[in-house]
Amino acid sequence: MAGEIAQQPDVLRRILDRGAPAIRTVATAIAARRPRFVLLTARGTSDNAALYAKYLIEVLLGKPAGLSSMSTITVYGAKPDLTDCLAITVSQSGGSPDLVAATRAARQAGAVTLAVTNNPGSPLAEVAEFHIDVLAGPEKALPATKTYTAELLALYLLVEGVRGGEGGAARELPGLARSILDRGDEVRQLAERYRFAQRLVVTSRGYGYPTAREAALKLMETTYIPAIPFSGADLLHGPLAMVDNASPVIAVVPDGRGGVALQPVLDRLRGRGADLVVIGPQAQVDKASAGFALPGGVAEEVQPILEILPLQLLAYEITVARGQDPDAPRALAKVTETH
Amino acid sequence: MAGEIAQQPDVLRRILDRGAPAIRTVATAIAARRPRFVLLTARGTSDNAALYAKYLIEVLLGKPAGLSSMSTITVYGAKPDLTDCLAITVSQSGGSPDLVAATRAARQAGAVTLAVTNNPGSPLAEVAEFHIDVLAGPEKALPATKTYTAELLALYLLVEGVRGGEGGAARELPGLARSILDRGDEVRQLAERYRFAQRLVVTSRGYGYPTAREAALKLMETTYIPAIPFSGADLLHGPLAMVDNASPVIAVVPDGRGGVALQPVLDRLRGRGADLVVIGPQAQVDKASAGFALPGGVAEEVQPILEILPLQLLAYEITVARGQDPDAPRALAKVTETH
Repeated sequence: MAGEIAQQPDVLRRILDRGAPAIRTVATAIAARRPRFVLLTARGTSDNAALYAKYLIEVLLGKPAGLSSMSTITVYGAKPDLTDCLAITVSQSGGSPDLVAATRAARQAGAVTLAVTNNPGSPLAEVAEFHIDVLAGPEKALPATKTYTAELLALYLLVEGVRGGEGGAARELPGLARSILDRGDEVRQLAERYRFAQRLVVTSRGYGYPTAREAALKLMETTYIPAIPFSGADLLHGPLAMVDNASPVIAVVPDGRGGVALQPVLDRLRGRGADLVVIGPQAQVDKASAGFALPGGVAEEVQPILEILPLQLLAYEITVARGQDPDAPRALAKVTETH
Repeated sequence: MAGEIAQQPDVLRRILDRGAPAIRTVATAIAARRPRFVLLTARGTSDNAALYAKYLIEVLLGKPAGLSSMSTITVYGAKPDLTDCLAITVSQSGGSPDLVAATRAARQAGAVTLAVTNNPGSPLAEVAEFHIDVLAGPEKALPATKTYTAELLALYLLVEGVRGGEGGAARELPGLARSILDRGDEVRQLAERYRFAQRLVVTSRGYGYPTAREAALKLMETTYIPAIPFSGADLLHGPLAMVDNASPVIAVVPDGRGGVALQPVLDRLRGRGADLVVIGPQAQVDKASAGFALPGGVAEEVQPILEILPLQLLAYEITVARGQDPDAPRALAKVTETH
């Protein structure tokens, strides 16, 4: 896991250098089909990448997008009419039977289908009309790390390509990712805080929300601490009651509109005496109990590709501190077959 | 909260007797507009009702449906083209400014807009083209209970109306709800099990998944126990590692295809030595550590209206056993204003 986390700057560079032209070709072909709406299908970590794509598609393309409930097709046999629909399936392995079945069904129902995987030879890549290879190289640790950021960057370049943009906001990401991963000592110190934590709440808004969900998933599957992700708005609609001075909160604070929208939530959390650790701009970290400052000057829509890095490291460090094996969490297999 | 839980059979009866004609009129008008896809917008408990509607719309209407990420419109100013789209906003109070803003934006973007609320005089009801009143009567306890099942039934009748059905599957619900709520002693006994629980996992699949989410939310906002909802398929993609013999699991097992699809998850959980409490058919309860048996012979698509009842009671009983006030969880206000 540590090795794969460390490879991320190289993977991002590879996508920008070698992957981008193929992604642009796919994007141009999809744009020519003029999809009216987008359905995203994925599970686990890839579902968080799909959620990021949903924000990009709605904000940058102005098209409504939804995460599909796969079981309506695979369990209940729904036969939706998907003319004018772009169906994007995101999967590291491209191997889970339900993803393949849902993608096949979407194609038969008239959708333009695109598979985004780390395995061009996978059944999922075969069954979809278009395929994007995220070029992350083999991922052997059970918790997905480099394939997550690779999926994010590939999806960003796809959306940019569909709208005819250059994706320039991503250019500095490999170097910035390197500079963040070089600060492992800071994360190791942060990890001490959670050595004996019984629970965690992870919150954000807007573009940062997929990061909150992915951080919670990573923490749960490696440390086994129940880590519950909430959009800041949803947190105020009920679960805030759960937060007290024994309930640490990690807030992913986007540098931009998402961070502004999150501000009232941060104020409420401080008001409740919560232990608040911020992953975000230095000024927000300074106001919190502790945190990890992210570099400034990065467009908000690509910040998720950097935000998750200290949180992956954090999950790793807490797991090691607890004497567990981050590479092979109990009860999990790398390719999960669900039907 | 106890009083409002107990009112649910009467509320369901009221919707079937007095609300159904108005819902059918709205459904007919919406069907005539021939929406191609559906966007659902809500927060908190109503978001779980919206998720239930998403399953109904995909399975019974064969139309793709998605839960909207409100912040793309209210925070990032996205301007999607929503021609041919039905935008349904679900809210008990109809008062949260972001819901009103998102609904207004959807209407301006060309969507057919429908508000489903418990308050026909609310700003949300005003701003939407169509409105359905769920007729639950004033809800004073902070945790929403009767407005949840009222929203579910109203949404079921809406979907039935759009496809020209009679909604006959709902006819017996008031009596069945009464028979479930009369079994409070069983729930009180079940609550003892969780008196000192540090965490809970709630899982289901298909039509039962919204129930799992709503049960988790109810448990968190009243008992303050972190209760994490997972679709059974997602649970196998990572969070299963978190489950051990100190991590109780509540499984909502639909009597039908959703239950069949959940079976491999139940087997894996048993294999990991999890304490498994089942809300579902008697045969499934018999195989679990404990549970609450639901009546048979109910169509799977309306089972969620019954499944949540013992779980609402459970949240109430655990809260009382812990010496907390279920009517007024700390830190919450009844109408949550998010922007």
